[in-house]
Amino acid sequence: MTREIVFTQRVEFGDCDPARIVWFPNFFRWLDAASRHFFVSCGVPSWSETERDTGLIGTPLVDTHARFIKTATYGDTLQIRTRIAEWRGKSFVMAYRVLRGDDLLMECEEVRIFAARREDGSIYALPVPADIRRLCE
Amino acid sequence: MTREIVFTQRVEFGDCDPARIVWFPNFFRWLDAASRHFFVSCGVPSWSETERDTGLIGTPLVDTHARFIKTATYGDTLQIRTRIAEWRGKSFVMAYRVLRGDDLLMECEEVRIFAARREDGSIYALPVPADIRRLCE
Amino acid sequence: MTREIVFTQRVEFGDCDPARIVWFPNFFRWLDAASRHFFVSCGVPSWSETERDTGLIGTPLVDTHARFIKTATYGDTLQIRTRIAEWRGKSFVMAYRVLRGDDLLMECEEVRIFAARREDGSIYALPVPADIRRLCE
Amino acid sequence: MTREIVFTQRVEFGDCDPARIVWFPNFFRWLDAASRHFFVSCGVPSWSETERDTGLIGTPLVDTHARFIKTATYGDTLQIRTRIAEWRGKSFVMAYRVLRGDDLLMECEEVRIFAARREDGSIYALPVPADIRRLCE
Repeated sequence: MTREIVFTQRVEFGDCDPARIVWFPNFFRWLDAASRHFFVSCGVPSWSETERDTGLIGTPLVDTHARFIKTATYGDTLQIRTRIAEWRGKSFVMAYRVLRGDDLLMECEEVRIFAARREDGSIYALPVPADIRRLCE
Repeated sequence: MTREIVFTQRVEFGDCDPARIVWFPNFFRWLDAASRHFFVSCGVPSWSETERDTGLIGTPLVDTHARFIKTATYGDTLQIRTRIAEWRGKSFVMAYRVLRGDDLLMECEEVRIFAARREDGSIYALPVPADIRRLCE
Repeated sequence: MTREIVFTQRVEFGDCDPARIVWFPNFFRWLDAASRHFFVSCGVPSWSETERDTGLIGTPLVDTHARFIKTATYGDTLQIRTRIAEWRGKSFVMAYRVLRGDDLLMECEEVRIFAARREDGSIYALPVPADIRRLCE
Repeated sequence: MTREIVFTQRVEFGDCDPARIVWFPNFFRWLDAASRHFFVSCGVPSWSETERDTGLIGTPLVDTHARFIKTATYGDTLQIRTRIAEWRGKSFVMAYRVLRGDDLLMECEEVRIFAARREDGSIYALPVPADIRRLCE
């Protein structure tokens, strides 16, 4: 059984486009927030703390695949159900289901890494930190 | 040979996150702009004109799959190469390559529809309009 | 005594810039949401309902003046205290105080109008609707 | 005579709200980009370079006052005319005029500081750096 965390997101007027529905890049903003809240809910410290202690600056994306099923508009309240679907050596798969009540609006799977920064500013993948994995399972 | 349109995008300070790299939802903002510019470059009227004339309100996403290969930061200038990779009956596939000079930063394929709106505000897919397809090929 | 409504806003990683503090345009996104929630809390219908019934499409800004006092970062939770400081013939003044606990982070006063749309797509100010004013006082 | 720099900004579909006009927080995104481009055009290094060399992390806002005169929508191209209207001991005033052709859409004056970061993450105002002022005059 994998742990699932629910994140609640309101949809605002400014999140919607001239077609009066959520402009899709906003869904990715919300998934990114849900991802961070997943780690916070599991007891993982903030990325500014982990950067200071271990060099870990966050969990950037390397791949994302999303399906948009129904639209949303302002006034809606969304539930984003987030879990880690798979752990790999240097990456992990986050899976999301975005619901409005019983309606599934969107699904997404992402591959993310635990990243550190090189001297020249570029980033690279750390092996999945064992302590973080333990907190999240 | 499919037509390819190049869209140029600057990266700004506010597009970057505390890890000092582009926050990934901004890439989707830029792809959406590149998609619209593709149609504009091909001579397709604005969606507010098409809405008035034929009910077509735009080209919402139904599926997107992106791979993030290298990071970008503010001061960078990106070239977004956009083409329609496939026409289907009621949808089409847009393909993007985001480059900084010769470096490929990101690739994405999207399935989009030509949408109209029902009385109740929900949207549905129109058959691909023949005149728009002709302009874009 | 004017009515004051409190709106709660989380600060997310992606709301922050490379200086690791909230990128200031995001404060305006949140004030705009707080403004709409003020009206919703007072019982005013959604702008899509009012557009259908009376032509009122929303409350666009004509003037805003903000002071930034302290910074915020991700993990913070903000309280936005919103009230209508003044009613005028064709506009009104919304006043906001953004707090984190007891710390005042930002203050803002805006002049907004109740807008309708002309045939050509431009907008104009309606006289302040008496029923909306009554709900908000 | 103060130096004035012109910054060009396209308006995209996703910058517009359900009222089909630019959602106002986007104007502040563009002013912030125009502000940085002003410094870049004057030969000031990027904030990541100045942070490494002198601790200067950027020019956060302390006050902004904007007037919205006409609306814009997607397809528009805006010219943002930026200048430094006043130098003070520990701050400066940036003034903007946003035009579409000859139409003035928006005006804004901002007070900004040159900021450095304390150990605890909070920021403070540096005296205006003489070399930067010389480049910008």
